[in-house]
Amino acid sequence: MSCLPTFADVERAAARIGPFAHRTPVWTCASLDRLSGARLFFKCENLQKAGAFKFRGACNAVMALPEAEARRGVATHSSGNHAAALALAARLRGIAAHVVMPASAPAVKKAAVAAYGGRIVFCAPTLEAREETLARVVAETGATFVHPYNDPLVIAGQGTAALELCQEVPHLDAVLVPVGGGGLASGTALAVAAVSPQTQVIGVEPATADDACRALQAGKLLPAGNPRTVADGLRTALGELTFALLRQHAVAVVTVSEAAIVDAMRHVWERLKLIIEPSAAVAVAALLAGAVYLPGRRVGVILSGGNVDLDRLPWPPRPA
Amino acid sequence: MSCLPTFADVERAAARIGPFAHRTPVWTCASLDRLSGARLFFKCENLQKAGAFKFRGACNAVMALPEAEARRGVATHSSGNHAAALALAARLRGIAAHVVMPASAPAVKKAAVAAYGGRIVFCAPTLEAREETLARVVAETGATFVHPYNDPLVIAGQGTAALELCQEVPHLDAVLVPVGGGGLASGTALAVAAVSPQTQVIGVEPATADDACRALQAGKLLPAGNPRTVADGLRTALGELTFALLRQHAVAVVTVSEAAIVDAMRHVWERLKLIIEPSAAVAVAALLAGAVYLPGRRVGVILSGGNVDLDRLPWPPRPA
Repeated sequence: MSCLPTFADVERAAARIGPFAHRTPVWTCASLDRLSGARLFFKCENLQKAGAFKFRGACNAVMALPEAEARRGVATHSSGNHAAALALAARLRGIAAHVVMPASAPAVKKAAVAAYGGRIVFCAPTLEAREETLARVVAETGATFVHPYNDPLVIAGQGTAALELCQEVPHLDAVLVPVGGGGLASGTALAVAAVSPQTQVIGVEPATADDACRALQAGKLLPAGNPRTVADGLRTALGELTFALLRQHAVAVVTVSEAAIVDAMRHVWERLKLIIEPSAAVAVAALLAGAVYLPGRRVGVILSGGNVDLDRLPWPPRPA
Repeated sequence: MSCLPTFADVERAAARIGPFAHRTPVWTCASLDRLSGARLFFKCENLQKAGAFKFRGACNAVMALPEAEARRGVATHSSGNHAAALALAARLRGIAAHVVMPASAPAVKKAAVAAYGGRIVFCAPTLEAREETLARVVAETGATFVHPYNDPLVIAGQGTAALELCQEVPHLDAVLVPVGGGGLASGTALAVAAVSPQTQVIGVEPATADDACRALQAGKLLPAGNPRTVADGLRTALGELTFALLRQHAVAVVTVSEAAIVDAMRHVWERLKLIIEPSAAVAVAALLAGAVYLPGRRVGVILSGGNVDLDRLPWPPRPA
């Protein structure tokens, strides 16, 4: 599990998940083009099954399991989009998915996993409790642990989004992706380097959760700490595999402010009429707030997910 | 201007607005199919230019004007989607659009008209002031008044959405549309009767703004009163032309509760990941709340618009 995936793995993932995943549409928007000065192509992974690109990697990992292993199920400790995606992929294969999450996790996240038939195993809200509980679940069930990003099959699966984008939109000058654990960014780097080598991959992360930016500068992995950001999918730090791939492909990483993230999210809701989550908005924020400036260029933007708690929007209600 | 439009007018409108309007996509959604028991085809007019189907009618009216009349501009007294649509259509033709609205209109509506280059003329917040101000603007400028719905060209333009839907999705059993002034509903009836006569057109309106339902039962036009509904685009009453067309085509009209409208709007945001406005949600509400029951049927749903004030969502914020 520690060897780096290659583009051949991305191609295999595309074939493997093809019958299960949506080939999501690519949208354009004249007003966001005007605001950014670039020509934008939005890959709508918010319209992917389970509402995020995470289904690609989870589905690839689940469908690649040999039958005997698959029968013992899969397990993970993410409480976000990966958990829901893994539960759905497992259901499509007819196997169990065990999801370890703190009892304090938001109700909306528990509901998403339960809706896809995942089995939730509660733990105390510490990293230690989470890892211990996961180890116990794996020991008891024989389930295969599917890491949310530091896994070659997961990374290869995430790379299929950019593969589709580059196939549909030739001659992109750049592709912008959010960076959390780095699964999407490193999978994108793999795919783009192979099918569109002249295209620059640019990662974007919140300035308050800039471990990837700092790690790549320092040349070594850094802990995430416990960053505060509205982009809740991007609070994790890079893993060994994703760090190695981002270095290997010389992916640039830029940062954006919290205000820029919320502003970009609103713009996409208002102009594209698409629901995206804050983590998906960071790449748009980089363009609108000037963290990257690509005048007249053809820029792919991966809108990574659309799972939002509509009762807790990141802008304050204003008086009527 | 008082003769009823025919299907030939819808076909002419389609040709006339073709170079300017979006041919909006038709979406499906497995989870809303499950919830409704029907097979749903969503015509995404929230993705139309200016964010609503209204651009079709306004564009048809503006582009049909003879050059001499066009040069004197157009005018209206709507403060909603029709006003923004008319401003955009006028800008595309390079003529002026004068929009009469009360000074108390929401800032977001003023901003939409201004963004498309419309000239806003403020008036006192009464029906009399609005009509007097409009008459004065027309007298001063020679502009052509484009009514938001009681106009043959506007009705014919609105009918092009259903025309596209029926062309793309054959064998529909029903098409559901929101009913406010009835421009969309009567244009839909015209188009569907011609190209898919076995398809039933069902209008949906808020129970608190049910003038169309009552008018069709009573066999005569009824005033809207001043209805309170979250579906702010549906507060108007039918006009003579739209009433006559809905009767002629025996369009059924059903009603839905305010709670059902808000619930349906949330479902579309959460499942389709599409921003729709409350007025667009009434047709979905009829399916989810059981006002119409069409098990196993193929049902078109016109998602009429997506212009929402994100600072004033119709569900209460919940404590974190």
